[in-house]
Amino acid sequence: MALQTLADAFHDELRDILSAEKQLLKALPKMAKQAASADLQAAFEKHLEETKTQVERVEQAFEETGKVSRAKTCEAMEGLIQEAASMMEEEAAPEVMDAILIGCAQKVEHYEIATYGTLCAWAKRLGYSKALALLKQNMSEEVATDKSLTELSQAVNAEANA
Amino acid sequence: MALQTLADAFHDELRDILSAEKQLLKALPKMAKQAASADLQAAFEKHLEETKTQVERVEQAFEETGKVSRAKTCEAMEGLIQEAASMMEEEAAPEVMDAILIGCAQKVEHYEIATYGTLCAWAKRLGYSKALALLKQNMSEEVATDKSLTELSQAVNAEANA
Repeated sequence: MALQTLADAFHDELRDILSAEKQLLKALPKMAKQAASADLQAAFEKHLEETKTQVERVEQAFEETGKVSRAKTCEAMEGLIQEAASMMEEEAAPEVMDAILIGCAQKVEHYEIATYGTLCAWAKRLGYSKALALLKQNMSEEVATDKSLTELSQAVNAEANA
Repeated sequence: MALQTLADAFHDELRDILSAEKQLLKALPKMAKQAASADLQAAFEKHLEETKTQVERVEQAFEETGKVSRAKTCEAMEGLIQEAASMMEEEAAPEVMDAILIGCAQKVEHYEIATYGTLCAWAKRLGYSKALALLKQNMSEEVATDKSLTELSQAVNAEANA
């Protein structure tokens, strides 16, 4: 049986988020390039750097729990990124596209918040204290990114509706 | 230009969430059927009923803003549901599957929370007060569902790791 224990589910989910973060590494530069607002570009570039560190922390979480780091294609993140890519192909006013890009990015952040939420609950239950600390750091960064995108959206939405 | 104004983006996003909610109407009965825990089954069935009302509210939001209700395939929700379906095909201990089902459901809830967050911000900016009230109701239900799943996960995760 592939998923006999909660530890099996934990490592399966860890492989999912590793794939998700790696997919995001490829998507964020495209989103930064598409953004018209310099602040939004900077936000995407900052989160790209954070995401690189997050990948390392997920790899450490495998190591701390005695498993070899391995990704499993995250179909949900594929869908989220495909949706963002479809939106970026639309003909849109630059200010409206910026508002849309923030929406797409917040969907991605919420996917990660939900996933790290599950991973942290399971790591705690399993007594994986070192992995828990690493995953909590990633979770905090995703929550902070989502919050800063909400703040940024105030000015961007105002521009889009000027 | 397809997305010239913030109102265009708002209606495009409304079409996205209408598709997402309708996809969820089909997925929730399968998740309820798969759940071993009676409490989890009941939670999925309760949310199915809420989702039916949420679809009606989204349709009303179209009407209140002078547009014909129309869905646009939500690729992100397709990915989320595909991921849940793949997990449900895995061979897993029933208690572990329940823990996984909660994780999948919380990812779906977070997708909706992010989307309604964007829709509410845009409705407010556009002065769509009646649509805003409807969308805020949906948002509140998604947040409450996510919270109740977190509470339910305590007992489910304990069972999965017994």
